[in-house]
Amino acid sequence: MGLEIMEKDVEIVFQPSGRRGRVPAGTTILAAAQGMGVGIEAVCGGKGVCGKCRVIIEEGRFEKLGLVSSKAHVSGLSAVEEKFLSPEELARGYRLACLAQVRESLVVTVPEESRTAKQVILEQGRERSYRLAPAVKQYSLVLPPASLSDARDDRQRLLEALEERYGLKDLIVDYTVLRDLPLLLRKEEWQVTVTLWQGREIIRVVPGAEVSHSLGIAIDVGTTTLAAFLCDLTTGELLGKASRMNPQIGYGEDVLARISYAMTEEEGREKLQQAMLEAISVLAEEMTAKIGREALEVDEIVLVYNTAMHHFTLGLEPKHMGRSPFVPAVSVPLDIKARDLGVKINPAGNIHSLPVEAGFVGPDNVAVLIAEEPYRSNSIKLIIDIGTNGEIDLGNKDRLLSTSCATGPALEGAQIAFGMRAAPGAIERVEIDPETKEPRYKVIGEDKWYPELKVTGAQGICGSGIIDVVAELHRAGIISKAGRINGRLETPRVRKDESGKLQYVLAWAEETAIHKDIVITQGDIRAVQLAKGAIYVGARYLMEKYGCDHVDEVILAGAFGSYINKRSAMALGLFPDCDPEKVKAVGNAAGDGARLALLDVEKRREAARVARQVEFVETAVEPDFQARFMEALSIPHAKDEFPHLG
Amino acid sequence: MGLEIMEKDVEIVFQPSGRRGRVPAGTTILAAAQGMGVGIEAVCGGKGVCGKCRVIIEEGRFEKLGLVSSKAHVSGLSAVEEKFLSPEELARGYRLACLAQVRESLVVTVPEESRTAKQVILEQGRERSYRLAPAVKQYSLVLPPASLSDARDDRQRLLEALEERYGLKDLIVDYTVLRDLPLLLRKEEWQVTVTLWQGREIIRVVPGAEVSHSLGIAIDVGTTTLAAFLCDLTTGELLGKASRMNPQIGYGEDVLARISYAMTEEEGREKLQQAMLEAISVLAEEMTAKIGREALEVDEIVLVYNTAMHHFTLGLEPKHMGRSPFVPAVSVPLDIKARDLGVKINPAGNIHSLPVEAGFVGPDNVAVLIAEEPYRSNSIKLIIDIGTNGEIDLGNKDRLLSTSCATGPALEGAQIAFGMRAAPGAIERVEIDPETKEPRYKVIGEDKWYPELKVTGAQGICGSGIIDVVAELHRAGIISKAGRINGRLETPRVRKDESGKLQYVLAWAEETAIHKDIVITQGDIRAVQLAKGAIYVGARYLMEKYGCDHVDEVILAGAFGSYINKRSAMALGLFPDCDPEKVKAVGNAAGDGARLALLDVEKRREAARVARQVEFVETAVEPDFQARFMEALSIPHAKDEFPHLG
Repeated sequence: MGLEIMEKDVEIVFQPSGRRGRVPAGTTILAAAQGMGVGIEAVCGGKGVCGKCRVIIEEGRFEKLGLVSSKAHVSGLSAVEEKFLSPEELARGYRLACLAQVRESLVVTVPEESRTAKQVILEQGRERSYRLAPAVKQYSLVLPPASLSDARDDRQRLLEALEERYGLKDLIVDYTVLRDLPLLLRKEEWQVTVTLWQGREIIRVVPGAEVSHSLGIAIDVGTTTLAAFLCDLTTGELLGKASRMNPQIGYGEDVLARISYAMTEEEGREKLQQAMLEAISVLAEEMTAKIGREALEVDEIVLVYNTAMHHFTLGLEPKHMGRSPFVPAVSVPLDIKARDLGVKINPAGNIHSLPVEAGFVGPDNVAVLIAEEPYRSNSIKLIIDIGTNGEIDLGNKDRLLSTSCATGPALEGAQIAFGMRAAPGAIERVEIDPETKEPRYKVIGEDKWYPELKVTGAQGICGSGIIDVVAELHRAGIISKAGRINGRLETPRVRKDESGKLQYVLAWAEETAIHKDIVITQGDIRAVQLAKGAIYVGARYLMEKYGCDHVDEVILAGAFGSYINKRSAMALGLFPDCDPEKVKAVGNAAGDGARLALLDVEKRREAARVARQVEFVETAVEPDFQARFMEALSIPHAKDEFPHLG
Repeated sequence: MGLEIMEKDVEIVFQPSGRRGRVPAGTTILAAAQGMGVGIEAVCGGKGVCGKCRVIIEEGRFEKLGLVSSKAHVSGLSAVEEKFLSPEELARGYRLACLAQVRESLVVTVPEESRTAKQVILEQGRERSYRLAPAVKQYSLVLPPASLSDARDDRQRLLEALEERYGLKDLIVDYTVLRDLPLLLRKEEWQVTVTLWQGREIIRVVPGAEVSHSLGIAIDVGTTTLAAFLCDLTTGELLGKASRMNPQIGYGEDVLARISYAMTEEEGREKLQQAMLEAISVLAEEMTAKIGREALEVDEIVLVYNTAMHHFTLGLEPKHMGRSPFVPAVSVPLDIKARDLGVKINPAGNIHSLPVEAGFVGPDNVAVLIAEEPYRSNSIKLIIDIGTNGEIDLGNKDRLLSTSCATGPALEGAQIAFGMRAAPGAIERVEIDPETKEPRYKVIGEDKWYPELKVTGAQGICGSGIIDVVAELHRAGIISKAGRINGRLETPRVRKDESGKLQYVLAWAEETAIHKDIVITQGDIRAVQLAKGAIYVGARYLMEKYGCDHVDEVILAGAFGSYINKRSAMALGLFPDCDPEKVKAVGNAAGDGARLALLDVEKRREAARVARQVEFVETAVEPDFQARFMEALSIPHAKDEFPHLG
């Protein structure tokens, strides 16, 4: 008879992931989990020695799952489990997954402390390892109904049930949740799902047991562009992304213009902030609508930005941040109620802001650092984050330096004659034939390149395309080392505009979606040179300060449409020489860092630590800065300076 | 030369009270304080033994006070002080007041722990002893200016200075305070005054050192009337008071009508709440304007109310509170940000709500209990709080029982033919001559009585007047024991209205400000009988439950214009027999309790404790309730039942 039982298949559902499957009766819960890709910590390898693989056997009838789960549906308690688990834990259904064998259908909750670190691929990012441990978690439970003999108030009833069921103590209930609590508790016969923030505050109560997963959003707030990522906070899954122009551009193209606006215009600071908060609300609404959800279901937003955007977004007085001694109002990470900012998500939800580093280096650079983790590296990494302001980090586990440099928005596709942000219709890749001077290019949203594609959807050129085109113009001999267009070439692609200035025609009007020639002007090339010169000089200063004459790795980051082409970046001389094998383009690392902070609270603590530890290097005050900057404007080809360029 | 110094007079200023005066050099700080009425704890009587009289000698130039203070301006450190004070405390300027002698002008801060309990008279309340220890306190300090070599962010700079100067640690800064922090710190050359809530949260930063004292408001939110008290949170002084009708009356006269409105009308609950919150904002604005201040300077409001008003004011769903098993949404004391409620005081300020007891007994009764403190008493106290709902407490330090009874609003002057709330123009005292049947009465706002005053400002009659007039009508033989008006008396005061119903004319049209006869109808008398009957029966049930056949003291409370006349209340049979010497009318004890909770955080903890401990007794469900209630309607005169009436 024992054998018969062993051969029966039973159903098992793991929470909170919702993974389900059938396993033969007699399988240990750990083996079942491993077979279904559910990560349970088992340090001793399932030998019953470490006591880490604690899981909770749920009790009850689960209508939507179509099964009944009971503590009696697993094998009897072993002596080892009695040693590792307290009587209270045993009463709550705790077992060790490596010892408890499945006998009948089961719902098993894997508590956070038992989950293994998860290796995930951040879409449009690098493969990065993190523990799925968001600030927001959901707990389902059934309360004893109110009666004349049990007339506890609703809040107390809920808190005591949470303590009894999950051992959660000393919780606070957000005021907005209290308001409707009597209705919410009674709607589904006292069965509710509670959303807890940071293990201490109830920020949502929803009637019923199997409710939608919590949503979270990470936003990289750039001076020019916002990039937003919508995530499932229970599974870590990326549910959507969206980007839009920074609406503050209407009040000033760059940071200084906006500080000036905030200081001189009436309610200027409030207007800047309101524009941003509305944009964030719209992003939340758009992204959730696309998956059939609502912005009010978003429980947390993590924001990263440079220090100026940080002040503008949070409505902090920016005047003193913009003048010596460049002191921000606040540096530490902040948690602000969504309703205090007027962001239209769950009003009890949280807006988490990553910390500011010293000087002008902002939370966006902290996000890059927690994504790239140079502080765990033995080799020396040079990290370049390209935005309207460039941020550069250099170092390893021993020491970490940061600086920022004014690159201007050219490398993001702004202030370029036909520049645009990375969106469908933007030229993102360019190659130029050194013989014919004819280009090939690829447009975002199209698989084929021009001229294979005769008519393209090209509307302009984005950051990665700009870098490509300048590098290729030089490689094809169309521009000189100094960046000057050669007007004596026999090609229709090089021509003069009405005022006699030379330009290169990248796309003819008839191929494009805008029915205009898309051209690269002498001014565009100059803007790229200024940007790359600033970055190069900044990196060099950091190397001198660190005391190294080469770097082991170069990481190119930036919120481009696709990854920056590292060959083009090298050809331009964007950074000091490095083995091309050791140069990596990682896309929007700041956005990745924001998502990691959203999905794993430990990353927030890491961010707070690194923000305090990183040393800020002020480069613009160096006496030889100007001379070195001018020198760095030329486009290199010399083998001595860049042996790896070949 | 020593003698010369001893004969010099020096100036001394005590903070935070601001008391100042001149004392001979050589006086101890304790003696100076005692001479100026500044309470400093000195358990050992100034013998240098207890170490309790710790004070802080301030350092610096105090422009507005016109003096310079220094640690060097007091006598040298004694061995006893070195024993009692740590090196850090000595560095911060701590001394023992009984040992340190004044040598030159001084500013001395008396820290909270060293202040003695204060005996104060709550205006319009009893003399009650409390420790002045509000949730809100102010701290002045000067920060080191920001510089390139000290570029800490503004928040950090402030927090570190507060820790260094006052030993305050782990503070949080409200988001609304962060916004303008850079401006506030720099406005007066880095000198600021910080307002701290509950010793942990910065809720206000004001430039400069000697700023206005924090303001707080206590409000007793009655079903019919709001009574508000504006207090100086540094001195405890009552700065003003105001009252107004409960604006929710427009949505329903009584609690049940308002619950029904909230449940059936669209946004009914929101409208009820908004009306109340606007009224609170208006009260704050009016009261502060009267003393030349602004509502935004109010840092805390303490609210007390019955459970229904508690739900309506906080916007809590009231449906389930009004039906069996009568479960409130929340019972514990609540602290809610003023901005979350939209009350227009300091947006970072706090709205504190006293806790709800079991059943329908609300925070207003808890306020009465912390004002009267029956739980500290050896003798058995009967406390009757008269409002639209009456609350009755009975007990002593061993046991405490509560019940509530539906009195209706008659005893507050509502639903009475010429009833009005206690405001100028209301008749608050009445006597009737048993021979002539002619009345004497006194109007709020006038010193003299009618008929000494031939023309009065009478507009109507308030609660205390109603109780007086019914008791006097009976004493004068105008109404029977059953409350019926005798129509056969030879007096023009008793007459019939158009429909033939008897009434008593309290004031002739020509004496009044409304140019109408003010009359007491048979219906008015009936309403008072119903109210007093409900209270009497409730008190009797509590005595039976407690197991006592008499009470040692009776406390009559209620938000009347003046105190209820205890003789009239006894004559009516409002409460069981008691020695008249032991009957006290204490006015608005709920309002007093709210003020005590505003001025002393320990009173809030006491409130939370007593709310959990008091036993609720449900009386209306008793089988003999109806019969006993009917019996209690008659107006007593029998010596056996009320031996003390005589």
